[in-house]
Amino acid sequence: MISMTIPSYVGSMAGKDFLNTNDYTQKEIAAILTASDDLKKKFRRRASTEYLPGRTIFLLFYNRSLRTRNSFEAGIYHLGGHAHFLSPSDMYTPTLPEDMVPYQTEAIADVGRVLSRYGDAIAIRVYGDAAKWVIGRGHKIIEEFARWSNVPVLNMEDDVYHPFQALADMKSILEVTPKPKGKKFVVSYAYSGGLKPLAVPQSCVLIGTQFAMDVVLAHPKGFELEDSLIKSARENSDRYGGSFEVVNDMKEAFKDADFVYPKAWSPKSFVPPYNITVDKNGASEYQDKFKDWKCTQEMMDLTNKGKYMHCGPADRGQEATDDVIDNQTYSLYFEQAENRLHVQKAVMAMIMGSKRR
Amino acid sequence: MISMTIPSYVGSMAGKDFLNTNDYTQKEIAAILTASDDLKKKFRRRASTEYLPGRTIFLLFYNRSLRTRNSFEAGIYHLGGHAHFLSPSDMYTPTLPEDMVPYQTEAIADVGRVLSRYGDAIAIRVYGDAAKWVIGRGHKIIEEFARWSNVPVLNMEDDVYHPFQALADMKSILEVTPKPKGKKFVVSYAYSGGLKPLAVPQSCVLIGTQFAMDVVLAHPKGFELEDSLIKSARENSDRYGGSFEVVNDMKEAFKDADFVYPKAWSPKSFVPPYNITVDKNGASEYQDKFKDWKCTQEMMDLTNKGKYMHCGPADRGQEATDDVIDNQTYSLYFEQAENRLHVQKAVMAMIMGSKRR
Amino acid sequence: MISMTIPSYVGSMAGKDFLNTNDYTQKEIAAILTASDDLKKKFRRRASTEYLPGRTIFLLFYNRSLRTRNSFEAGIYHLGGHAHFLSPSDMYTPTLPEDMVPYQTEAIADVGRVLSRYGDAIAIRVYGDAAKWVIGRGHKIIEEFARWSNVPVLNMEDDVYHPFQALADMKSILEVTPKPKGKKFVVSYAYSGGLKPLAVPQSCVLIGTQFAMDVVLAHPKGFELEDSLIKSARENSDRYGGSFEVVNDMKEAFKDADFVYPKAWSPKSFVPPYNITVDKNGASEYQDKFKDWKCTQEMMDLTNKGKYMHCGPADRGQEATDDVIDNQTYSLYFEQAENRLHVQKAVMAMIMGSKRR
Repeated sequence: MISMTIPSYVGSMAGKDFLNTNDYTQKEIAAILTASDDLKKKFRRRASTEYLPGRTIFLLFYNRSLRTRNSFEAGIYHLGGHAHFLSPSDMYTPTLPEDMVPYQTEAIADVGRVLSRYGDAIAIRVYGDAAKWVIGRGHKIIEEFARWSNVPVLNMEDDVYHPFQALADMKSILEVTPKPKGKKFVVSYAYSGGLKPLAVPQSCVLIGTQFAMDVVLAHPKGFELEDSLIKSARENSDRYGGSFEVVNDMKEAFKDADFVYPKAWSPKSFVPPYNITVDKNGASEYQDKFKDWKCTQEMMDLTNKGKYMHCGPADRGQEATDDVIDNQTYSLYFEQAENRLHVQKAVMAMIMGSKRR
Repeated sequence: MISMTIPSYVGSMAGKDFLNTNDYTQKEIAAILTASDDLKKKFRRRASTEYLPGRTIFLLFYNRSLRTRNSFEAGIYHLGGHAHFLSPSDMYTPTLPEDMVPYQTEAIADVGRVLSRYGDAIAIRVYGDAAKWVIGRGHKIIEEFARWSNVPVLNMEDDVYHPFQALADMKSILEVTPKPKGKKFVVSYAYSGGLKPLAVPQSCVLIGTQFAMDVVLAHPKGFELEDSLIKSARENSDRYGGSFEVVNDMKEAFKDADFVYPKAWSPKSFVPPYNITVDKNGASEYQDKFKDWKCTQEMMDLTNKGKYMHCGPADRGQEATDDVIDNQTYSLYFEQAENRLHVQKAVMAMIMGSKRR
Repeated sequence: MISMTIPSYVGSMAGKDFLNTNDYTQKEIAAILTASDDLKKKFRRRASTEYLPGRTIFLLFYNRSLRTRNSFEAGIYHLGGHAHFLSPSDMYTPTLPEDMVPYQTEAIADVGRVLSRYGDAIAIRVYGDAAKWVIGRGHKIIEEFARWSNVPVLNMEDDVYHPFQALADMKSILEVTPKPKGKKFVVSYAYSGGLKPLAVPQSCVLIGTQFAMDVVLAHPKGFELEDSLIKSARENSDRYGGSFEVVNDMKEAFKDADFVYPKAWSPKSFVPPYNITVDKNGASEYQDKFKDWKCTQEMMDLTNKGKYMHCGPADRGQEATDDVIDNQTYSLYFEQAENRLHVQKAVMAMIMGSKRR
């Protein structure tokens, strides 16, 4: 093996959790993205990046995944480490104290402490049915892991945040526009018949405002994000000098936009804690009124030669038409997917690496 | 680590797909088998063969597997790389455009393009129920992956071809008979109560004729292979100088055979596109008439001290008796299974390796 | 990579199976535990321990697992090797001859011989429903693998033995008390509503007596361990010079104990071969009479500043109260879990490594 210089970012955030981009400053996020550039270049030229030899990460998926699972599994392998792909059905399901079912579950307090003995980080994905559609319960599960684990905990998407997607999104923006300050970034509702969590739009407005973009959140009435989140976005734009605005008109929002991110989420007023029961039918019926919130070429024509963005998988023909998603000029769809790999490798290298002397 | 010479076959077919042995010339197949010899020897003496450091392969199984999964997973690890074992139930099932189900599937076009961003090859197994028992639909799924992926696609068995099995089979033949030209190779139907695809017998007659063997295909009426396949086998034997014959009598076929491959498949006229519906009961009832197509010691006695072959798992007591399968002198059953490992490593090394300067 | 001295224990038991601690002498078990000390120290200081490069192990789980799966998977990776995590649902289920179901199962005889061609060891967990609650059938499955496999077979817990747990337990005891001879070790029934196998208490009394401890087995009437096991424990204590006693009173047992291991198992008289049918309701009703067999602080106060032990997962509030399990002073709960990693690495290194010249 050829001798390899270890970059200074390896271990620079050793031991920290990564649950929400907004737990970090703009400067810290920028450092992650810079590290991800280095890793992307090295990946392209197949340079060795074995910065985490002997390190293991547990990937615990309560939900299905293509991008997240494979980018984490490939990523840790590229770094010289190893991923354990864990499905709750292969173990006693790690569970909050209030949800324990005898002989089917094991307390997260125990699972977190045990896994901390065997490996170097625990990453979790949990939202939707797996979190009983009580908004915040998925995030609570991840916080419970963070509380009890002695190793870093990473949020691979819960029902409030999807921080690695936000990192990949900002990296994709920076690759187009190295100075995003003042660029118009539209995070818009777009129709899908499926029930979807709030995590992606919420993490998008957080990272957009953190990078001083002019963030416009567009959605029909009833699709409001959570209040605490809106508050954080406003604080970000005050602190970092961008702007944040909410509108209820997709066309108005798209006008002169530099980046548009049309993406489905579901109206929160039909599920707890905003409703007494989980009313999936009510949510579906309500969102079915907004099938015209769709990203087409006509919509793209309203933008300032804007880029199309989506976390994937896009519901083709609903959220956006094929010609938009597959557009070679302005669609960042597959680049965003790839950037998941690079930003996750950056965070793993920084958090799971040994602190340098 | 001791310095290691990289063999010249590594990267020699860089970037190619491997969907069917017949897409390659006899010379190219022979080169794969020669490479597999080298890898088998090195495996036996535990020599390092880390020719694919940093490389990853996605193994997507729509069907159960023992040999294929474990030989690919061990194989890429022996080569210094890493396999992602993927079950469709862990992701949104990759699906053809005409079969999409909202919120349960993701287009193969998208899955193929996304995975190409993270890794170096995609291998797929799909037949039977997973391909709705429409013969050719499994192969179409693999072709759809090949169309959209930017990395090589490998066929781990579909409903038309099982090319890696054919490679292992020919390697097993060559280990016994280095010059197989003119040797009698009998690919025969043998009874099993299960519904089985055509892939193995079809790939067997292709590779047998490609190596100029005297191939005899034996089956009861109603068990015909696909016309296009028979045509390719005849073309192979014309081109390479062997012979190809179809008979309807197992005993006649076995007479003086050098290699016999008694293996179940199901009559194609009961399933689409050869029938309007998938008539599993009809197929079962029909094939139940042929329980006497069984490989016994008595049958083996008809051969020219012939070798017994089967891809595994054999339905013991139906396709063949235990004393045949486990015979120490003439059964190649476990050697064929082992050779899967070596031929797959050869193809991965040749296809996934970097082209040499 | 820095050059690394290979410890002398690597390969020292090359090729042996590990099905039951009692198949080994005290001296051999002690050597395993000494090796595990070395590996634990190296793990703590992140020293490289790549003693098994190129080696693979198949981990076949018929039952759920957190500790066993993750400690084996991390362990072989730390040793430079690779684990295949196998679920019976991903393959045709490996099955005893008498339980074969056409087209759903494959004979263990075949699976064992095939996997032996691809890798270096096969580890299996099977008990309870997966072994039809016929006590001994799980162990028979593992013995069938051992009979047919050409590589070492490891018992990751069956319905008779849990030898790696016993190793981790003895390591945890030795870390507290380097000379355990004559120390009082109480293996006690403790209530849980779940149906549990006999493996842990049986392996506990075996290893305790093998290390000359004063072993007291405590349980209500009806919770007797298997006769053959009791016989082995008595032989151990005769041979190694400790003592072995069975009592029916938890408090009496705990008095002046140095180590207590209160753990649920189910009364064997309700399941075959001790009963004609599997009477889960009968077993549940019977064991529900013993909810007062619980480890509390009050119980711990009876001991000689004794340590609390449990294999995990403990049924909190049933087998023991939270304050006992999580006690920082006397609970070995998480240390036992960690020691699984180290003892398993020791056995893998000794059994899967090459014999030294």
